[in-house]
Amino acid sequence: MKLMRSWMQSANDPETEFPLNNLPYGVFSVDGDEPRCGIAIGDMVLDVAAMEAAGLLRITDDFVLDVPFWNEVMELGPEAWKRLRVLLLGFLGEGAESQEQVAKYMIPQARVRMHMPLLVAEYTDFYAGMQHAKNMGSILRGSPDLPANWLHIPIGYNGRASSVVVSGTDIHRPLGQTRVAGADAPRFGPTERLDFELEVGAIVGTGSVLGQPITTAQADKMIFGFVLLNDWSARDIQAWEYQPLGPFQGKAFGTTISPWIVPKAALEPFRCAEPVREVPLLPYLHEKTQGFYNVALEVQIQPADAPRASTIARTNYNQVYFSAAQQLTHHAVCGCEMNPGDLLGSGTISGPARDAFGSLMELSWAGEEPMTLDTGETRSFVEDGDTLTLRGHAQGDGYRVGFGPCSGRILPALHMPGWA
Amino acid sequence: MKLMRSWMQSANDPETEFPLNNLPYGVFSVDGDEPRCGIAIGDMVLDVAAMEAAGLLRITDDFVLDVPFWNEVMELGPEAWKRLRVLLLGFLGEGAESQEQVAKYMIPQARVRMHMPLLVAEYTDFYAGMQHAKNMGSILRGSPDLPANWLHIPIGYNGRASSVVVSGTDIHRPLGQTRVAGADAPRFGPTERLDFELEVGAIVGTGSVLGQPITTAQADKMIFGFVLLNDWSARDIQAWEYQPLGPFQGKAFGTTISPWIVPKAALEPFRCAEPVREVPLLPYLHEKTQGFYNVALEVQIQPADAPRASTIARTNYNQVYFSAAQQLTHHAVCGCEMNPGDLLGSGTISGPARDAFGSLMELSWAGEEPMTLDTGETRSFVEDGDTLTLRGHAQGDGYRVGFGPCSGRILPALHMPGWA
Repeated sequence: MKLMRSWMQSANDPETEFPLNNLPYGVFSVDGDEPRCGIAIGDMVLDVAAMEAAGLLRITDDFVLDVPFWNEVMELGPEAWKRLRVLLLGFLGEGAESQEQVAKYMIPQARVRMHMPLLVAEYTDFYAGMQHAKNMGSILRGSPDLPANWLHIPIGYNGRASSVVVSGTDIHRPLGQTRVAGADAPRFGPTERLDFELEVGAIVGTGSVLGQPITTAQADKMIFGFVLLNDWSARDIQAWEYQPLGPFQGKAFGTTISPWIVPKAALEPFRCAEPVREVPLLPYLHEKTQGFYNVALEVQIQPADAPRASTIARTNYNQVYFSAAQQLTHHAVCGCEMNPGDLLGSGTISGPARDAFGSLMELSWAGEEPMTLDTGETRSFVEDGDTLTLRGHAQGDGYRVGFGPCSGRILPALHMPGWA
Repeated sequence: MKLMRSWMQSANDPETEFPLNNLPYGVFSVDGDEPRCGIAIGDMVLDVAAMEAAGLLRITDDFVLDVPFWNEVMELGPEAWKRLRVLLLGFLGEGAESQEQVAKYMIPQARVRMHMPLLVAEYTDFYAGMQHAKNMGSILRGSPDLPANWLHIPIGYNGRASSVVVSGTDIHRPLGQTRVAGADAPRFGPTERLDFELEVGAIVGTGSVLGQPITTAQADKMIFGFVLLNDWSARDIQAWEYQPLGPFQGKAFGTTISPWIVPKAALEPFRCAEPVREVPLLPYLHEKTQGFYNVALEVQIQPADAPRASTIARTNYNQVYFSAAQQLTHHAVCGCEMNPGDLLGSGTISGPARDAFGSLMELSWAGEEPMTLDTGETRSFVEDGDTLTLRGHAQGDGYRVGFGPCSGRILPALHMPGWA
């Protein structure tokens, strides 16, 4: 696929994450006005809510863009998503007749504030990164052997939707119970092993019916788009709490997503082959159109007083063993109702190389081998004041499709009300 | 506490679950009209939405009762909940002047259809039944020893809000992956070990702020009321999937709650002492006012062709080791934002006696000792056509406070679309 040229020159820059080929969904505001739907194009945001209000852009009878979330568009279904995309390509393509009219609805990205692009209905986090699973096995259990079910089931757990936040939101270091190795009793206080997890999140656009399973083909059609996702984790809280019912408060204090939802349509040219299957999958997980994508990912960390960020990991979304469509199928197959706005985290994505690991737990091997940053500082886990940033892009022929930075800074822990 | 007498004679019956002392919140409709808020009193439903519309009952400036959920009332906070209760006690008490006027808003319970009483924001299921945890340890790991964290942490996991349904909703037997003991590979198909779990659910009425922990005293004030809750479970799906991230699809096909939310105020007289602590709790979990309640619970099962239901278990809500307020505190203490409509399951409640176990897994000891029902049939797990019903009441002096039946029938599994 080649660059689709736009009259908006900044969209033709081979380095921009927002060429005409992308057209990602976001929610923005300017100078404190009402947050509303917008589309990124080059270094601008197209105020599609205003275009809808002016009668220039309509994808259905109702107004669906004047709200601070894309859920209403999601609910309209894939035909409407396509209609919107076709309209936007028409408005923004090189030589478009309406250029002058549309130019009035462009706002520089430097001027806008980005908000959560969707109302998260429910949040589920999967565990589809094989290298990550092997690393965690080695670190926690002394063996890289995968759990017996790992190659068969898209393993997942329900996360907490209420703490999903948009890039740029500060996160307080969480309090919780931890137990030092060898201690009889746990203690209560701020986590000492705060970590990030590099993931891609899939957004469910249309729902399923309670009690009714779905196929992988249906699941693929239900997916609206993708975000970058940092599943912040408190490793010491998690280690003490997770037996026997899985991760809970070690994950519930914050999950950061990118401001832009990249449409599934924009990633179509980047579909790639499924991984080699070590054992056959059960038929309900077979895919005719495979839901794997070639998207380069990287992680940067910037301490509070550092002049610049250090890149600490580079990997690819194609390192997952189960696609988002397979995860969604598995999620719904028991009869669980899926809804527009459900967010499915891929699981931490680690590549095989040491500098391709998707968490500090892996990069510093549980603190045994602290990382040295470009600035000379070392890190075993995330410290107060650190900013973590995930970036991702699919590389086309002379263009790239990206998500915008998925960034969050850690603030010190808050004390309990009424506590010393 | 004694019976508070009402001019509605059926509310003075010592057997009714809905005396004036209760006044539970429900959502009802009549002959297919719009579902709206109602209050149970004796064998009637008081149409408080109509009273609000008529200007007879106002708890705030806005209309908050003409909707099919109690969330708007929840959001008003404890003072508004109290105001509503005081108004209702005035309208319904013996000798009330407005009796004739209010009587027009009474509808026989036999005529109404009950709906979900709330929009479930998120659903969390805990694990606070000590006997249940010991039984599951004995059955699954050969030892009743509790996990090392059990006495310290209100262990919980995030469940799926989208599959929480109101009593009376049929549930399809779920499909999923299971692996027969000794088999190399899993199979896909309907669960063969369908179970119920007897729980009490706490409804969070007011929220907390992302990033800010709460105290147990705050948590207690945030609780709006309680429901009965059946956390349907597919034991074979659960057994194969739950390592290492906990229960997922084995729980996600359905959770049934009672149609009525019993106000926390109605259960105040039934608060009881906390359990004996085998180890001291961390200070953040200490309670000044203990959130444990004496509520008798029972479970009935009725096969499709059986003339009547058999009672298979009797226990008490006071058998939990952590209160709902302690669970809520733990949930929020990491900074996790809690919201109106969050539902917290207590965990399966089993008493020490064999006939006080809160699941068939325990009652039939994983199928090793099938139960014999009153009708002579036996049960190891739930079969197609079976109806499971939970009941619960707090016994006062000449009155009881109940929830209405929490009932669900199991239908056969549905085939996958496109499958043979």
